[in-house]
Amino acid sequence: MAGNSIGKLFRLSSFGESHGNAVGGVIDGCPAGISVDIEFIQKELDRRRPGQSPFTTSRSEEDKLEILSGVFEGKTTGSPIGFLVRNNDQRSKDYSQFKDKYRPSHADYTWDKKYGIRDYRGGGRSSAREHIARVVAGAFAMLVLKKYDISFFAYTSQIGDIKIDVCDKSQVEMNPLRCPDEKKALEMMRLISQLKSEGDSIGGIVSCVISNVPVGLGEPVFDRLNARLAHAMMSINAAKGFEIGSGFESAKMKGSEHNDIFYTEDGKIKTKTNNSGGIQGGISNGEDIYFNIAFKPVATISRTQDTVDREGNETTISVEGRHDPCVVPRAIPVVEAMAAIVILDTLLEARLLRE
Amino acid sequence: MAGNSIGKLFRLSSFGESHGNAVGGVIDGCPAGISVDIEFIQKELDRRRPGQSPFTTSRSEEDKLEILSGVFEGKTTGSPIGFLVRNNDQRSKDYSQFKDKYRPSHADYTWDKKYGIRDYRGGGRSSAREHIARVVAGAFAMLVLKKYDISFFAYTSQIGDIKIDVCDKSQVEMNPLRCPDEKKALEMMRLISQLKSEGDSIGGIVSCVISNVPVGLGEPVFDRLNARLAHAMMSINAAKGFEIGSGFESAKMKGSEHNDIFYTEDGKIKTKTNNSGGIQGGISNGEDIYFNIAFKPVATISRTQDTVDREGNETTISVEGRHDPCVVPRAIPVVEAMAAIVILDTLLEARLLRE
Amino acid sequence: MAGNSIGKLFRLSSFGESHGNAVGGVIDGCPAGISVDIEFIQKELDRRRPGQSPFTTSRSEEDKLEILSGVFEGKTTGSPIGFLVRNNDQRSKDYSQFKDKYRPSHADYTWDKKYGIRDYRGGGRSSAREHIARVVAGAFAMLVLKKYDISFFAYTSQIGDIKIDVCDKSQVEMNPLRCPDEKKALEMMRLISQLKSEGDSIGGIVSCVISNVPVGLGEPVFDRLNARLAHAMMSINAAKGFEIGSGFESAKMKGSEHNDIFYTEDGKIKTKTNNSGGIQGGISNGEDIYFNIAFKPVATISRTQDTVDREGNETTISVEGRHDPCVVPRAIPVVEAMAAIVILDTLLEARLLRE
Amino acid sequence: MAGNSIGKLFRLSSFGESHGNAVGGVIDGCPAGISVDIEFIQKELDRRRPGQSPFTTSRSEEDKLEILSGVFEGKTTGSPIGFLVRNNDQRSKDYSQFKDKYRPSHADYTWDKKYGIRDYRGGGRSSAREHIARVVAGAFAMLVLKKYDISFFAYTSQIGDIKIDVCDKSQVEMNPLRCPDEKKALEMMRLISQLKSEGDSIGGIVSCVISNVPVGLGEPVFDRLNARLAHAMMSINAAKGFEIGSGFESAKMKGSEHNDIFYTEDGKIKTKTNNSGGIQGGISNGEDIYFNIAFKPVATISRTQDTVDREGNETTISVEGRHDPCVVPRAIPVVEAMAAIVILDTLLEARLLRE
Repeated sequence: MAGNSIGKLFRLSSFGESHGNAVGGVIDGCPAGISVDIEFIQKELDRRRPGQSPFTTSRSEEDKLEILSGVFEGKTTGSPIGFLVRNNDQRSKDYSQFKDKYRPSHADYTWDKKYGIRDYRGGGRSSAREHIARVVAGAFAMLVLKKYDISFFAYTSQIGDIKIDVCDKSQVEMNPLRCPDEKKALEMMRLISQLKSEGDSIGGIVSCVISNVPVGLGEPVFDRLNARLAHAMMSINAAKGFEIGSGFESAKMKGSEHNDIFYTEDGKIKTKTNNSGGIQGGISNGEDIYFNIAFKPVATISRTQDTVDREGNETTISVEGRHDPCVVPRAIPVVEAMAAIVILDTLLEARLLRE
Repeated sequence: MAGNSIGKLFRLSSFGESHGNAVGGVIDGCPAGISVDIEFIQKELDRRRPGQSPFTTSRSEEDKLEILSGVFEGKTTGSPIGFLVRNNDQRSKDYSQFKDKYRPSHADYTWDKKYGIRDYRGGGRSSAREHIARVVAGAFAMLVLKKYDISFFAYTSQIGDIKIDVCDKSQVEMNPLRCPDEKKALEMMRLISQLKSEGDSIGGIVSCVISNVPVGLGEPVFDRLNARLAHAMMSINAAKGFEIGSGFESAKMKGSEHNDIFYTEDGKIKTKTNNSGGIQGGISNGEDIYFNIAFKPVATISRTQDTVDREGNETTISVEGRHDPCVVPRAIPVVEAMAAIVILDTLLEARLLRE
Repeated sequence: MAGNSIGKLFRLSSFGESHGNAVGGVIDGCPAGISVDIEFIQKELDRRRPGQSPFTTSRSEEDKLEILSGVFEGKTTGSPIGFLVRNNDQRSKDYSQFKDKYRPSHADYTWDKKYGIRDYRGGGRSSAREHIARVVAGAFAMLVLKKYDISFFAYTSQIGDIKIDVCDKSQVEMNPLRCPDEKKALEMMRLISQLKSEGDSIGGIVSCVISNVPVGLGEPVFDRLNARLAHAMMSINAAKGFEIGSGFESAKMKGSEHNDIFYTEDGKIKTKTNNSGGIQGGISNGEDIYFNIAFKPVATISRTQDTVDREGNETTISVEGRHDPCVVPRAIPVVEAMAAIVILDTLLEARLLRE
Repeated sequence: MAGNSIGKLFRLSSFGESHGNAVGGVIDGCPAGISVDIEFIQKELDRRRPGQSPFTTSRSEEDKLEILSGVFEGKTTGSPIGFLVRNNDQRSKDYSQFKDKYRPSHADYTWDKKYGIRDYRGGGRSSAREHIARVVAGAFAMLVLKKYDISFFAYTSQIGDIKIDVCDKSQVEMNPLRCPDEKKALEMMRLISQLKSEGDSIGGIVSCVISNVPVGLGEPVFDRLNARLAHAMMSINAAKGFEIGSGFESAKMKGSEHNDIFYTEDGKIKTKTNNSGGIQGGISNGEDIYFNIAFKPVATISRTQDTVDREGNETTISVEGRHDPCVVPRAIPVVEAMAAIVILDTLLEARLLRE
């Protein structure tokens, strides 16, 4: 209820603050008998980890996963999977000034007002370090989904004004921005370097494609697959917009342009276009699911900014600490993880409605 | 679980198909002692009703609300509110050809595949007539929220390529498109009339502003207020995109531009800009919440289209029936209703986390 | 959340007061493609209906079921099943005196305190008439379970001090008490007649056996099958106790007596005794599930009783209306219905944990 | 969904097996600003701990609690509380023979069938060691409830045939059986010693009284307070029966005897008797809530027993390991913990239904 769980049948309950003892979670509803490839899970965590490149924060934690339960002799048992990652690099002193001052466009003010108490070390619970639990649960979901051959592919499609022209999947893990356009990636890196030197940050867009999704995922009405994905993606730190298939472009289109005409290929019903983004009436139709997520520029910038303190007195704040100039590259494994959690959850649901 | 409920504490479970006996729902968790203004609820239903203007479908049902329980001597009792609206205008014969053919970009194919059975009369359960239950529940939510003075204001901000220049609230219920720009409304109406005559349809954007929201609504991490709103809005028929505050524009912005600087006014902490759209760290900060929803063009068009039948044979389909050339105007009360459901639900949640 | 729903995957949300417009509910998660035998469902409702015999209340409603949605051409569609039963026999005047006085051991006082408002006509929402929704949902569950050959058999095993000696299933629908011991049934009827003439009431015990349950139903830890059944049964009006298998007798037993020894019969693992009541470690083991529910004597008696009014002034109350001297016979179809809801819900759950 | 969570608003998700790395959980929905008395929580854990007396198992773990998140500067923050207790004393070799043989009346067979895989070391997930998470969550609930002065008092009221005659609260923590009747406690201890020497075990009854509960807790219909308590208590290992207030005795009573007559004392409405057990219509009425739980004799006995192996071959089994001859004394803190979880959860719910 209190918002720290996601999923109905495959369910993650996460815990942990950036500078507490550990972050982690409990996964309930993971099917039994799944081979647990620890290296794969750790690799996904490493993709999210800070300090991978000059374009991401240099906080150098190792984010080593410890599984506490639910796995026996290398396989899931159907029992809840408890796990944690210790917070090793807790330079709490960095954060002491934030006890009383509110960082602009951060969660400091709202959390303080909501709870009347706030772990002011780093972002506390509102830190992107919470994403660790998501990446672990997403990796477990991917292991379950392995046999279905469903793939999750997210990438940087825009940083500031720079948009990709080509989407070469093989490029994505070749550059630190996870951008599938080699040339544009260079431009983006230049832009980020410059902004970093100016003590500033920049927004961007992550695009994601899910392929080989079976027909029939998503529950009608309130839990349409598009609504479930929107919820999951908009729950990622700094997300400001979500669009699926034709998205905001669809507002400008006519029905005669937009409708995806059915045809048959090798005995399988397919659509000629895919403005629907793989979902019709809230249910997957077997075509690729694709969507975009807009991320705002990181709120933590090293420039001095005006703000107020807890009592409302006007003051200034400057944040010296380590921080990303752009969240987009590190958001990519999180987007894939959230997509995997939603797809597995709806795939389990789809088992229930037919006898 | 099966997707026909929304809300955690204030919860609507909806039922009904477009051509069955009735559509309706059960509202559980409505606080006791609320005065039930039936006329207000019916008026909201009438705003959603088809046949209000040449720009919406001419299906002429009256959509008369019957409350079955949970209200006693004009007040809510805290018991579940059962309600229904009969389907009077069931011209089932109109729809017989859809038994075996799939309408492009409709839910026909996916529902058939998911359930193996489909009420092919009209949209069945996937019809926008299901929105009736949402409007009723939203109206109850508004009655509960009355004393908080929270207002919900949605309007047409774009049809096709035509975007509004001004937002004059007083205009909205003056034109059938619910467009707050009198001049642009005329252009939009011309466009829709023309497309209607061509047997085509058009997309658009609904914008919504929620004012006077208390600080502290929204649960962190997975149930951020923005994620809850995204889920609710993307569950409306034909929704393709959602953005809050700076939305997709934020991707192009620098942190130094985007950050909302705090200041104090009359002893109250406020922000100078509102790129956050009234939500920071997933929690309302007291500023206006505003967001946009992109709606695709109506899939039902009267032109003949290529398609396939249940067996995958290629064929053509032409839909003679009554239909809207643009869903946007009638989506507006639905957007407001969904917003009210989410706000009330999170307001109830906010009572739980402080002693 | 507010308590008017039961089931996780097969879920009933019920509504309605005894003297409002209707009682009913929404069933969400009923698998698609199930043949809906309306006569069977109505027959179950008739078994619960008052006025069947001198031993039950003479309120003579017909309890005619109207299905509003979710069934098409005689089959479930996977969409929510809305249904209602109108309240025809609303003699509201009978109940006017209860506006201000609290009937002893009824819900009047606690509901008034909880909600600050109360539908004082009859029991309002706390009336056993609410059981109608349960019986309908239970009947749908039984229709889904038909192909599994699972049977639900509940009966009267005790009224006051009189306990059955034999359990002859064929007798149960032969006497108005649904007692499987012909001789004891006569004694029970005499006792009830006498108490009725004295304006009094009596408690009793319902026993239930569920046969042919597959191995593997019930989720460990908090949602053990026994805990789910206990919850469901203790939610029935007037239930005071629940025991499964050896039940309270187990407190007196030694492990060496109580343990159910495994053996093999026709290649199937079985147990020699069944003190476990068909459930081990919270999960069904394939043996018969059996349990008892204690029901208190009906609180409504025609004798004059001391009580207080809303202001706490001491006064007396006498209830002239129609009422059962014993709830047990009419509770039997409700017990079976609740058992069916739990079994179907756990059977659907069991599909989720194995790949 | 998968059964490892309890509570709706104050929610525990537990994890861990008896011989894995750790047992623990995540508590979500704990109100912010509660002082966390770690010593109190550890003391509750110690009460549950094995090895406290000759009458409980001599497994000598320390069960030291580690809190991972959600507590800052000695107070809860409203964020999820992650916690764990390491499993230090993992003598896995003790359990190797159980890989293939099913212990009678244990969860071995049913878990194996349900999941197709089983952590056969000790009870795995079905071990009473899972109760640790409950005791921790219950202790947090008690800390939240402190200011309401609600008390939870559970005790041994029966072991085998021996029932208490007096209930002297001061005696309970004076004897290892937590029995409030000094004399009967001695008899019970003699019985248990004898059975232990015979390699046998014995059942018993735990009684519990909750005092100072506010009027108005419990949601009507499916989530009555009695149903919630029944669910919670029947989810404890080895529980076979639950009765509240007059319980199974009520079956024998007349309405005129059973009804609790209202009267007024010091301006407060009270009842002369309390057959209702503090709950009327599913809602607390301010009187003491009291209930009994029957526990079966421990299934683990050291005598050789007949059984079958995974393939169904008949064989024998003898369990040498450490085990309790009677679960009742150690179940007492678990009963109190579960009661506290339910009461806090319903107390939070009660905030929602009144404006």
